Amino acid sequence: MDIIDKLRDIVGERATASPAERLCYSSDASMVSGTPDYVVRPLSTAEVSDVVGLAAAEGVPVTARGAGTGLAGGAVALRGGIVLDLSGMDRIVEMDLANLAVVVEPGVVQARLNERLRPHGFFFPPDPGSANFCTLGGLIANNGSGMRSVKYGTTRNYVLDLEVVLADGSVVRTGSRTLKAAAGYDLTRLFIGSEGTLGVITQAVLRVAPLPKARRLVIASFSSAEEAGRAVAATFASGIVPSACEILDRTTVAVLRRCDPGLRLPDGDVLLFEVDGSEGAVVEAAEEIAAVCSPTASSVMTASGEKEMEEIWAARRLVGAAVSRLDPTKSRIYVGEDVGVPIKEIPALIREVAEISERFRLPAMKYGHIGDGNLHVALFIDVLDAREWARLEGAADAIHRAAIRLGGTVSSEHGIGAARAEYMMEQVGSGALSVMRAIKRALDPKGIMNPGKLGLDDDHGPPSGGEG
Amino acid sequence: MDIIDKLRDIVGERATASPAERLCYSSDASMVSGTPDYVVRPLSTAEVSDVVGLAAAEGVPVTARGAGTGLAGGAVALRGGIVLDLSGMDRIVEMDLANLAVVVEPGVVQARLNERLRPHGFFFPPDPGSANFCTLGGLIANNGSGMRSVKYGTTRNYVLDLEVVLADGSVVRTGSRTLKAAAGYDLTRLFIGSEGTLGVITQAVLRVAPLPKARRLVIASFSSAEEAGRAVAATFASGIVPSACEILDRTTVAVLRRCDPGLRLPDGDVLLFEVDGSEGAVVEAAEEIAAVCSPTASSVMTASGEKEMEEIWAARRLVGAAVSRLDPTKSRIYVGEDVGVPIKEIPALIREVAEISERFRLPAMKYGHIGDGNLHVALFIDVLDAREWARLEGAADAIHRAAIRLGGTVSSEHGIGAARAEYMMEQVGSGALSVMRAIKRALDPKGIMNPGKLGLDDDHGPPSGGEG
Repeated sequence: MDIIDKLRDIVGERATASPAERLCYSSDASMVSGTPDYVVRPLSTAEVSDVVGLAAAEGVPVTARGAGTGLAGGAVALRGGIVLDLSGMDRIVEMDLANLAVVVEPGVVQARLNERLRPHGFFFPPDPGSANFCTLGGLIANNGSGMRSVKYGTTRNYVLDLEVVLADGSVVRTGSRTLKAAAGYDLTRLFIGSEGTLGVITQAVLRVAPLPKARRLVIASFSSAEEAGRAVAATFASGIVPSACEILDRTTVAVLRRCDPGLRLPDGDVLLFEVDGSEGAVVEAAEEIAAVCSPTASSVMTASGEKEMEEIWAARRLVGAAVSRLDPTKSRIYVGEDVGVPIKEIPALIREVAEISERFRLPAMKYGHIGDGNLHVALFIDVLDAREWARLEGAADAIHRAAIRLGGTVSSEHGIGAARAEYMMEQVGSGALSVMRAIKRALDPKGIMNPGKLGLDDDHGPPSGGEG
Repeated sequence: MDIIDKLRDIVGERATASPAERLCYSSDASMVSGTPDYVVRPLSTAEVSDVVGLAAAEGVPVTARGAGTGLAGGAVALRGGIVLDLSGMDRIVEMDLANLAVVVEPGVVQARLNERLRPHGFFFPPDPGSANFCTLGGLIANNGSGMRSVKYGTTRNYVLDLEVVLADGSVVRTGSRTLKAAAGYDLTRLFIGSEGTLGVITQAVLRVAPLPKARRLVIASFSSAEEAGRAVAATFASGIVPSACEILDRTTVAVLRRCDPGLRLPDGDVLLFEVDGSEGAVVEAAEEIAAVCSPTASSVMTASGEKEMEEIWAARRLVGAAVSRLDPTKSRIYVGEDVGVPIKEIPALIREVAEISERFRLPAMKYGHIGDGNLHVALFIDVLDAREWARLEGAADAIHRAAIRLGGTVSSEHGIGAARAEYMMEQVGSGALSVMRAIKRALDPKGIMNPGKLGLDDDHGPPSGGEG
């Protein structure tokens, strides 16, 4: 019996090997591509378990996928095999708010969970730019975070328990609904950020937090991005914990204004500080931030209207996609887009990125979660010009190496996937990478779970990726 | 050449096999005992690496130890071999506050770090009852937490990077000073809570938090501990996040008063809620907590004087040791002392513990970090009465099983060690335990790192422990 027939025995018509469908699943939001041999859309843990069990028996790779919003090729089937599209497993299974918990399937879209939580006065803090599309399974598998991790932490801090299908098809639970446990290895955190290389997440118990009663936004503008970076370091050193701390360099501000001329953003390189909490606390914190920024800022203003703040954040969320407004002949390519460094090194990183942009003659927008040391660099090129592609590759490589040299990371939140696998050895060192490989071999001895990712293969050369 | 001579080649006179010294290292603060063959007091990572390398070559167990304050036998050499006393590696290596980080050796006492941080306006939030004695290495190896984890999270949330000596003597780093990274498996979190079974922590980069500007204490008293438990659940459901939420049942209150008659604590079963933040925020939060508790509380009062709050917390810290004041013929034995359950189950846990105390005719004090669902049960007996020892064992077992049945954990923060190893299978399930064992085998194939702990041995029977 053929593999496709065996898959159909498990999920019926929700398994396919049609070339058109396989092509649809051959990429994510990165430049990485790879066509699966089979696409399977399971609707239950039992189906996932049976499919992975079959894959193990046949020695076929399995790559889990949610909404395909990943920026590192994590959900791309580099070596063929089965893509498991988990977007159909999209039930919010239980609202257990008395335990500050919700139980979700991996295909639930992040924003939909928050819509369900809002009337109850709670929220799930991780808030990536793709919140309106990305699924929670992917968010967990990448340890995603976004704008509010500077105060609330990353996804890692909000997962109490996972149900995972292991490489042999068996199903395990990694935790419980108890908020605090010291009982053996932290398997929950091991699977978080493992990008589908150790198992497939089929259910998660997430911890939720109470919605803050008030928010306020401080908008400070500076004469250079580097100056803005210094203000970030000064703010944290003074003991303030904003709920978001974003940078929008002058190019980004120009793009945002072109999208929405009514947007109230000043000239220059801009920092957005959000503070949240009680009414009194946010007034106080906003004043403190303004006081720290004032000596070096060109302007400081505060927004407290819910509508005005929402407009600024909505624009901020779209900035990644909106850059083509600056020059319609250019497209943004997502490479080198997620570096991070220790807070103290933020000004140095901004300076280096500016130099790299100049050296490779590529315009670069710089924005991101600067309070975490996380800078999203948007590089854009004319995709019809092969020389610009070559320069793009050089610039992305230089940005990655600069981050590592500054004691940082090639990815703060988007993941390593295939796109950044080549940097793992340099960033984490051969010792740590050996430990990761030993864990991988122990839990997936046949190497069927999302192969080719994270630099875990001993022949961990990067995939060519394909450029377009 | 004998092993002791080889050890002396590495650390000189800081290695010993003298019976007296070995005896001194044969227990921690639990009932578990086991005598090492050698005691080694290394002063550097290089020495730890050489000792572990030697142990690997000789096939000799290695058990790391800090201050010996552990309550589960985690630092006890169950199967002989080498005890590595890391308390001499006690340097605060670097205060890197611009990166919100400090670099410490494992032997630094928790409170000493906070003394160094205070003048700079920062603190390291994990705050166990043993803060004045316990070392940071042990805190990390157990994922310790204490009173403030209800708001700030456990040690897990404050470790950026670890230096670890692996089972073959090699040295790895697990992270960096960057606050946020998505770059492969979370080795930092894997070693946190692994209780020395995967490697020896020789250095840690910790994240620090700004000291809150104000604190306030709400003291509410109830007619029963169960009623108090319901008030805890109601407080969290209403979206308040206190910085501490402790329960002191009426027996505990009586003990505290006997220690310090001046202590301002009401009659009944008492909840202590601490709130911290800005001056305005704490006033507001204290009022909200009072409003939630008032309908069911016998009394609610608020303390804001630093001295008064400090007295109450200091007394709270001592309560574990102070119970013998209640009855000088009784001693507290640390068993069944660290269970935790989901918040919703707190009243049920309190009820079950009361029933168990009655059934086994053993007085029980109940106190602890109830906001995390973590209840410290203090059982006390006449240690000269063998029948009381037998009843104690039965009661502790019943408490552990009740916690598991309620979806909870046999340990919230003290660890599994040897004392609770027998419950691992029941609590985490055979699937998760198999994953832990696979990881253990992958990273420590010879099984030399702290053997006999966490239920990781395939013959994971509990040690007899010895009773006195």
